[in-house]
Amino acid sequence: MTNQNNPKYTGVIPPVLTPRTAEGTIDTVGLDAIVEHLINGGVSGLFVLGSSGEVPYLTTAERDAVLSQIVAINAGRVPVLVGACEQTTARVIDEGARLIGLGADALVVTTPFYAISNGPEIEAHFTAIHDALKVDIFAYDVPVRTHHKLPVDVAVRLAESGAIVGVKDSSGDDVSFRQLLLATKHVPGFSVFTGHEVVVDGALLGGAHGVVPGLGNVDPAGYRRLFDLAQQGEWAQAAAEQDRLARVFDIVHTPDSSRVSPGAAGLGAFKTALVELGVIASNTMSAPMVSLNEAEAAQIREILAETGLLAVAAK
Amino acid sequence: MTNQNNPKYTGVIPPVLTPRTAEGTIDTVGLDAIVEHLINGGVSGLFVLGSSGEVPYLTTAERDAVLSQIVAINAGRVPVLVGACEQTTARVIDEGARLIGLGADALVVTTPFYAISNGPEIEAHFTAIHDALKVDIFAYDVPVRTHHKLPVDVAVRLAESGAIVGVKDSSGDDVSFRQLLLATKHVPGFSVFTGHEVVVDGALLGGAHGVVPGLGNVDPAGYRRLFDLAQQGEWAQAAAEQDRLARVFDIVHTPDSSRVSPGAAGLGAFKTALVELGVIASNTMSAPMVSLNEAEAAQIREILAETGLLAVAAK
Amino acid sequence: MTNQNNPKYTGVIPPVLTPRTAEGTIDTVGLDAIVEHLINGGVSGLFVLGSSGEVPYLTTAERDAVLSQIVAINAGRVPVLVGACEQTTARVIDEGARLIGLGADALVVTTPFYAISNGPEIEAHFTAIHDALKVDIFAYDVPVRTHHKLPVDVAVRLAESGAIVGVKDSSGDDVSFRQLLLATKHVPGFSVFTGHEVVVDGALLGGAHGVVPGLGNVDPAGYRRLFDLAQQGEWAQAAAEQDRLARVFDIVHTPDSSRVSPGAAGLGAFKTALVELGVIASNTMSAPMVSLNEAEAAQIREILAETGLLAVAAK
Amino acid sequence: MTNQNNPKYTGVIPPVLTPRTAEGTIDTVGLDAIVEHLINGGVSGLFVLGSSGEVPYLTTAERDAVLSQIVAINAGRVPVLVGACEQTTARVIDEGARLIGLGADALVVTTPFYAISNGPEIEAHFTAIHDALKVDIFAYDVPVRTHHKLPVDVAVRLAESGAIVGVKDSSGDDVSFRQLLLATKHVPGFSVFTGHEVVVDGALLGGAHGVVPGLGNVDPAGYRRLFDLAQQGEWAQAAAEQDRLARVFDIVHTPDSSRVSPGAAGLGAFKTALVELGVIASNTMSAPMVSLNEAEAAQIREILAETGLLAVAAK
Repeated sequence: MTNQNNPKYTGVIPPVLTPRTAEGTIDTVGLDAIVEHLINGGVSGLFVLGSSGEVPYLTTAERDAVLSQIVAINAGRVPVLVGACEQTTARVIDEGARLIGLGADALVVTTPFYAISNGPEIEAHFTAIHDALKVDIFAYDVPVRTHHKLPVDVAVRLAESGAIVGVKDSSGDDVSFRQLLLATKHVPGFSVFTGHEVVVDGALLGGAHGVVPGLGNVDPAGYRRLFDLAQQGEWAQAAAEQDRLARVFDIVHTPDSSRVSPGAAGLGAFKTALVELGVIASNTMSAPMVSLNEAEAAQIREILAETGLLAVAAK
Repeated sequence: MTNQNNPKYTGVIPPVLTPRTAEGTIDTVGLDAIVEHLINGGVSGLFVLGSSGEVPYLTTAERDAVLSQIVAINAGRVPVLVGACEQTTARVIDEGARLIGLGADALVVTTPFYAISNGPEIEAHFTAIHDALKVDIFAYDVPVRTHHKLPVDVAVRLAESGAIVGVKDSSGDDVSFRQLLLATKHVPGFSVFTGHEVVVDGALLGGAHGVVPGLGNVDPAGYRRLFDLAQQGEWAQAAAEQDRLARVFDIVHTPDSSRVSPGAAGLGAFKTALVELGVIASNTMSAPMVSLNEAEAAQIREILAETGLLAVAAK
Repeated sequence: MTNQNNPKYTGVIPPVLTPRTAEGTIDTVGLDAIVEHLINGGVSGLFVLGSSGEVPYLTTAERDAVLSQIVAINAGRVPVLVGACEQTTARVIDEGARLIGLGADALVVTTPFYAISNGPEIEAHFTAIHDALKVDIFAYDVPVRTHHKLPVDVAVRLAESGAIVGVKDSSGDDVSFRQLLLATKHVPGFSVFTGHEVVVDGALLGGAHGVVPGLGNVDPAGYRRLFDLAQQGEWAQAAAEQDRLARVFDIVHTPDSSRVSPGAAGLGAFKTALVELGVIASNTMSAPMVSLNEAEAAQIREILAETGLLAVAAK
Repeated sequence: MTNQNNPKYTGVIPPVLTPRTAEGTIDTVGLDAIVEHLINGGVSGLFVLGSSGEVPYLTTAERDAVLSQIVAINAGRVPVLVGACEQTTARVIDEGARLIGLGADALVVTTPFYAISNGPEIEAHFTAIHDALKVDIFAYDVPVRTHHKLPVDVAVRLAESGAIVGVKDSSGDDVSFRQLLLATKHVPGFSVFTGHEVVVDGALLGGAHGVVPGLGNVDPAGYRRLFDLAQQGEWAQAAAEQDRLARVFDIVHTPDSSRVSPGAAGLGAFKTALVELGVIASNTMSAPMVSLNEAEAAQIREILAETGLLAVAAK
């Protein structure tokens, strides 16, 4: 609740979606619009090339184009964190060096994936990347994708050594999240962010410094309100705002699971919501993911209307 | 936070440990002492024959003896819930009928295990058990043991039909927990309890009605304080109490994992703490689980002293 | 291939299905018919109360009735192995003592389930059961149900100590299966059986002593032919017979997975095939499992006809 | 056993290890030596940049250097297959185009990883890659790394459409392997290879066309003998050779698991064996993996001596 350790990063730092035109190319106009939508909503940073930004589906050229575009439109207003999404240490260093060269302020790095590692390798991985690049690094704990949980003891040692400045926790393990908060509250400047959308109130009550919500693309102002209420100790109101956001989050359950993959469902719902809100023009997904259809969009409109984000649900 | 739906069960209902003598028989004196320790600590119910009560290790005769003993010593002071820990529907009905006959007030029932089921079978399972026994049933969602998550939509339908009066959620999935809270808050009398020890403040903030903490055997008064603070809206103090309890919970990390199984570590730590607190005489585990040794007990004493539960750590 | 260690158990020992009448009671007439069908097919033993026998769904009274019936009809013609399907050591001992008392020749015992154990506990588990009951014990390795793989080193030590006389491997881990074969071939009388249906030829080539095929209820003579061909070193013909049986096994893929659970699909297909073959009268499953419908039965008839088990597919 | 469908690829195609000097750079002299060792051993192809080649740890520059070196030293003697190890479709196409440009004859492609996909996306993934590159593509089924099993029905459709010319199965699921063999034996030119080391005899008996054994780096001649014996129908001798190779494979169990990760253990053992056999000069692993130490090397020498690969174990 109180940031006794003076964390460098706090607040709402959403993982920025990567819009595509109906033809499938990067939608640069839409990218600018999303950035303005987010900054107007009160975010304190932008996380570019995250899972929600479809980073595993983007070619290297597309990754560079997206980052450059956002760095330019942001123009230094908020910090830009960027995902260096590569399999292991040496490849992350190459990827990270290139992305930092394009203007990012900090890197977001996962545990190794495809590789089959262990705790000591994970610790060496982050240490080597920080030694090579000397930039702020957030450890991104997302075992549903990497299949290696970032162990709490490793995270604490990396925090204490300065190899990482924070953790973005998308592990879904709220017990280890609390343990990480308790074990790092003495580390000056260190930040722990939750990557979840629907238990942010509890995370903040437990001492989290911020949130990286994919749903923050749809309702950045809602997450900013939730964060501010928590900072003010207005917990009952924070919980009520969280409940409203949890209802907005139901848009991710609208896609037909026989047609849309688990990876495409949530991101497709976020993109479709941004189309309905008039922020972007198309909900096209990166191939081979399929886009949501009109029936799914209609359900999303209902939810956006019910939660106050759309004036009327009918189109 | 507020119990708008007037739940029948609320507060702290710990899963009662089953003490054994050094010779391995059920320690009936210790069982009485634990019950008094819990009721003195302010619990609102007793959950007998849960995982923390080592139910899978108890013979049928032992299960009956433990329940009968607790029903007698409790003498109606608080409701007694009992686990009917069996593989599938017909076996749960047999087990439940016998346990209700011994004086339990309500049953705690998991999804089928060893069997490989699906959503419709899980729904039919709970419905058939309630139809057969006509008693209060808590669904116990513990996929780490049953390997079947209770689906939220199934739980909601069972709540609405009256087949279950509550859910004890030990799933570790805080997102589905919040969704369950939101989806059942309109069901009169229905309760959602968290089975976790270290994020109870957040669960209560999100609307949970109570907690079933294994650690509540060690510090029932601490969990009662946390619950009361939450009821009073004193969230910052609730979080501080939770942080203290999270530190107490570190006792579960003291056992040597090369020697003690994951199943025995936490329960062994709880039993050892009760020995150190003078509640019971032996930390003996059900075979084939091994008991904690003196080195592990020494670490536990340190933690109990540091968190105010023991006057001095030295023995 | 050659049984240099003179194993006590060899050949085809199918897990006997438990037929139910359309009303859901145990079908004793059908049970007798299945036993005759199996013995006529050339099986070398009967495994009663296995997963294929729906053991987790049977009440204790039903388990006893099924075993007693089979012991009586078998009348000592082949060994009767029986599953003591209980959660942990003390409960298995109680269950096993009762079942041995009803006339079984040997017990089939899994690693603990619902409990969360480790290697040493698993070793102590089997040792304690053998010490208590002094009967032949097969370790049944079925991690898809117990969620604990029987470690190869533990199995080898249990074989060497005499605590177990064999392993039924349904782990799906063909590498550890081969390692187990190599590591136990020096143990006099020890048997390693595969629990799989479609790679029995390779298992026998690698030195397996027998097979426990659920599909053996449908085509016991086919598995006996496969076993005999392997014994004679006629490997090409054995592989061809296996290929035919693999096609028969496709009956397990006929159920609609939106309606029938994974646990019910295979067993339901086996029961339906026995109805089509005229061995039993009803394909009724234990509640809450659903039975296969006529559309699914029609597909099964096609496969039985195509593989030579039914004269004509049309009904 | 018999290749009725006239497969384009057959025999032993090992995943070529990538040796590093003690300083950690690519050991080009060692790379040449491994290629000669393999071709002298009778392999029918080289699989470069596979998991055993440490592909996830190699930078793009290193990947290119390794492939170019092997293409040059091979000089067209056997086909060169190369792994295009990237997260999703568009990235695989970029990677594959570059690698084919360097002289590879065919690509080896996994299901998407890091991404969370489903069956239709996996099918679209392979189809799009083949449409873009028009080269021979092997689907590499390795769920322990990608966490998505290649579904049998998807593989069959891809085989029939010509999008893939074969499957390298490292899934550890021998049942689906047999089903794939049966379901594709009508597809002209199609190949199914097993990626396992210790059940190759059974796989070949079931109709597999070849093997991609990491252990083939250590004993290529042994795998060639096994393959030839199977082709000749000398199954008992094939099984005996497989048993010897299974004993050689025990070198992967020598590393201390508290020090060496699961990913590093097997590859480190293969490299160490090649040092002991005099093929390469150093067993250095790609960072952050640790290399095997002298104690582990000593155990490996024992096994190599016992299995006839080293004249004497003492060093």
